[in-house]
Amino acid sequence: MRQSKLFTKTQKDAPKDEISVNAQMLARAGFTDKLMAGVYTYLPLGFRALKKIENIIREEMENAGGQEILMPSLQPKENWTVTGRWETMDDLYKVTDKSGKEFALGPTHEEIIVPLAKKFISSYKDLPLYLFQIQNKFRMELRAKSGLLRGREFLMKDLYSFHKDEADLNEYYEKMKGAYRNIFEKAGVGGITYITFASGGSFSKYSHEFQTVTSAGEDTIYLCESCRVAVNKEMRDEQDSCPVCGNKNLTEKRSIEVGNIFNLKTKFSDAFGLSYKDENGKERPVLMGCYGIGLGRLLGAIVEVHHDAKGMVWPEKVAPYLAHLINIADSSNVADNLYDELSAIGVEVLYDDRGNKSPGEKFADSDLLGMPNRVVISDKTIEAGKYEIKKRSEKEVKLISRDELLNMFKKK
Amino acid sequence: MRQSKLFTKTQKDAPKDEISVNAQMLARAGFTDKLMAGVYTYLPLGFRALKKIENIIREEMENAGGQEILMPSLQPKENWTVTGRWETMDDLYKVTDKSGKEFALGPTHEEIIVPLAKKFISSYKDLPLYLFQIQNKFRMELRAKSGLLRGREFLMKDLYSFHKDEADLNEYYEKMKGAYRNIFEKAGVGGITYITFASGGSFSKYSHEFQTVTSAGEDTIYLCESCRVAVNKEMRDEQDSCPVCGNKNLTEKRSIEVGNIFNLKTKFSDAFGLSYKDENGKERPVLMGCYGIGLGRLLGAIVEVHHDAKGMVWPEKVAPYLAHLINIADSSNVADNLYDELSAIGVEVLYDDRGNKSPGEKFADSDLLGMPNRVVISDKTIEAGKYEIKKRSEKEVKLISRDELLNMFKKK
Repeated sequence: MRQSKLFTKTQKDAPKDEISVNAQMLARAGFTDKLMAGVYTYLPLGFRALKKIENIIREEMENAGGQEILMPSLQPKENWTVTGRWETMDDLYKVTDKSGKEFALGPTHEEIIVPLAKKFISSYKDLPLYLFQIQNKFRMELRAKSGLLRGREFLMKDLYSFHKDEADLNEYYEKMKGAYRNIFEKAGVGGITYITFASGGSFSKYSHEFQTVTSAGEDTIYLCESCRVAVNKEMRDEQDSCPVCGNKNLTEKRSIEVGNIFNLKTKFSDAFGLSYKDENGKERPVLMGCYGIGLGRLLGAIVEVHHDAKGMVWPEKVAPYLAHLINIADSSNVADNLYDELSAIGVEVLYDDRGNKSPGEKFADSDLLGMPNRVVISDKTIEAGKYEIKKRSEKEVKLISRDELLNMFKKK
Repeated sequence: MRQSKLFTKTQKDAPKDEISVNAQMLARAGFTDKLMAGVYTYLPLGFRALKKIENIIREEMENAGGQEILMPSLQPKENWTVTGRWETMDDLYKVTDKSGKEFALGPTHEEIIVPLAKKFISSYKDLPLYLFQIQNKFRMELRAKSGLLRGREFLMKDLYSFHKDEADLNEYYEKMKGAYRNIFEKAGVGGITYITFASGGSFSKYSHEFQTVTSAGEDTIYLCESCRVAVNKEMRDEQDSCPVCGNKNLTEKRSIEVGNIFNLKTKFSDAFGLSYKDENGKERPVLMGCYGIGLGRLLGAIVEVHHDAKGMVWPEKVAPYLAHLINIADSSNVADNLYDELSAIGVEVLYDDRGNKSPGEKFADSDLLGMPNRVVISDKTIEAGKYEIKKRSEKEVKLISRDELLNMFKKK
């Protein structure tokens, strides 16, 4: 992408109404635009990062046997009265049409997927089953103030698993923990994201959250450094030691919940009468698990974790572009050629070809946007027959040959 | 995908409340599930077809210079009062939150994109600009009865173009016609989709629709067979001849509007004060075009056009799977191996490995699902050392060798 054609421009100052680092940096860099509190437009660079996250998640869900579907946001009231959540869910947006019919804007999809699954599940032969979607959710957050960390409208991946017994559910639940670890590893927050024991609600002792440690977090967790698991503050009274090793010397940390997984058991199956015939012809309730990740929240968490005073520092697998090519030479010939060459071999390059910006402005923008690799073409590098390369996360600047440069990017 | 693991099963009978062919066949084949009138879940096979359509559209929009973004569905009332459409748009869903704040559920996105563009467009140097998204739209259709052809909630691609003058807008408008022709060609409805002159509303003499001729259509058009353009019935009084050649001998046809493009001129720029400084520093209004395609409607139209009494007949580029591999031999060894081999070289295969279905049931399902190529493995084909292949759109059955088979699919 030639930066001269890019829709967005960077801004010196963050919007006055944004207090979180992720919202400030994403706005300044032109990744997102705030339409209102908790509701954001993804602009071209932000959209690319979002798509990278989406594809990482999709790949892991498919590897775990998930079949992708797409359920509606507009949902009949009747489905929500079955579970009682029409009345009890505080943050449910409700819509009435001209004929007086009432709808919910889906904040989650158990009320839709369970009656759907019921149409196709009748025998033990239909189980297990794993369905997922990546779809907008709506929640009436009246005081959304944490940028992408807490939205009124936000993209979420939700997978629902259906099982014949608890052993099968538990096995898949453990498998999904592994899939989540892979996702957060690829997204660049693996090392600081902890499986956290949280309240299981009315149906289970625990649920599990994936909490990314950062001072920007809205949650508080108590971390067992040796087991690398944590306890959510909400569970602290019931669970004052590490659930794995019993260690009582836990460290308090602020964190962002980037994913959660629930053992739903038969809570929703019971409500909708979702059952199956076992090997002996006996009718049994289906057991369920559900597994969520907010895509925008993960994107916001990545920014909270990976930034410095100058801007964002994108991990390679989620960066909008792998390389930021910057021309500060008098002629654009060498940079144009390199841009064409890298593009031709499939390297994603943002090319700062702008003629009306000083080298200083270009470097400042590059640091703010935070692509993982910066390549600079100057009159000096042209004279030396080399290319200047610098990782956003490092200080060292290197001069390398054309072959070294191409090899470096080809591998990724 | 092994069909034994597939979430959905086929149904003999169509749901009683569906009257359109697309809704009946898609439901019977397990491609979609109706949640309520005009609101559908895409099930795994339907979701794959939807994604194919999405990717065809995205590729053409990117080729036309479009930068992809994602705007919210939840939109502040304030934006809609600026254009007056809060009051005048009949099918607008309105939501009120607990604090009394009112929102629209976006039926289109001019009210969001124009104020957004205003933040980044100030000079002629920022133009032209092309932004698009693929996002849910909501329209309060009280009598939705045509399956995917008319939804209350539906995925749409909308591109908005911004220009400094009419010549530039007109040039891009023509380019977009070409992009749309490519999309409908790839989607398998190119030969029967006609550029149709329709009302331009308050701001232009004409808009242009892309109308796919089928008896299932809700629209009526008058077709000039020699120019291959049409006039929408709504324009018939003003335009009783072919707008290209003047021919008055037009043929009446039923059709589905699969896309439309509008020359918006300065209608929305004026409302929001979107202007730019020209080369002489003079402030001028930005001209706009907008270009829509409903993804679900296109999917429904493809089914209306490409089916026979036995089921759907998917064009290759939008088929959920390129091949339907069916094992009716006693052993599954040969079929298992072929499935693995085709999957390994990236061929998308649905593999009917079900042990509890008769050959007759498998063939009937295969015709209903409508994958473009059927490969049958039977004891006879194994004995002959061949594979039986049949195109869904043809009657001829061929026996071919393993190499011929692999070569056939490799090319695609």
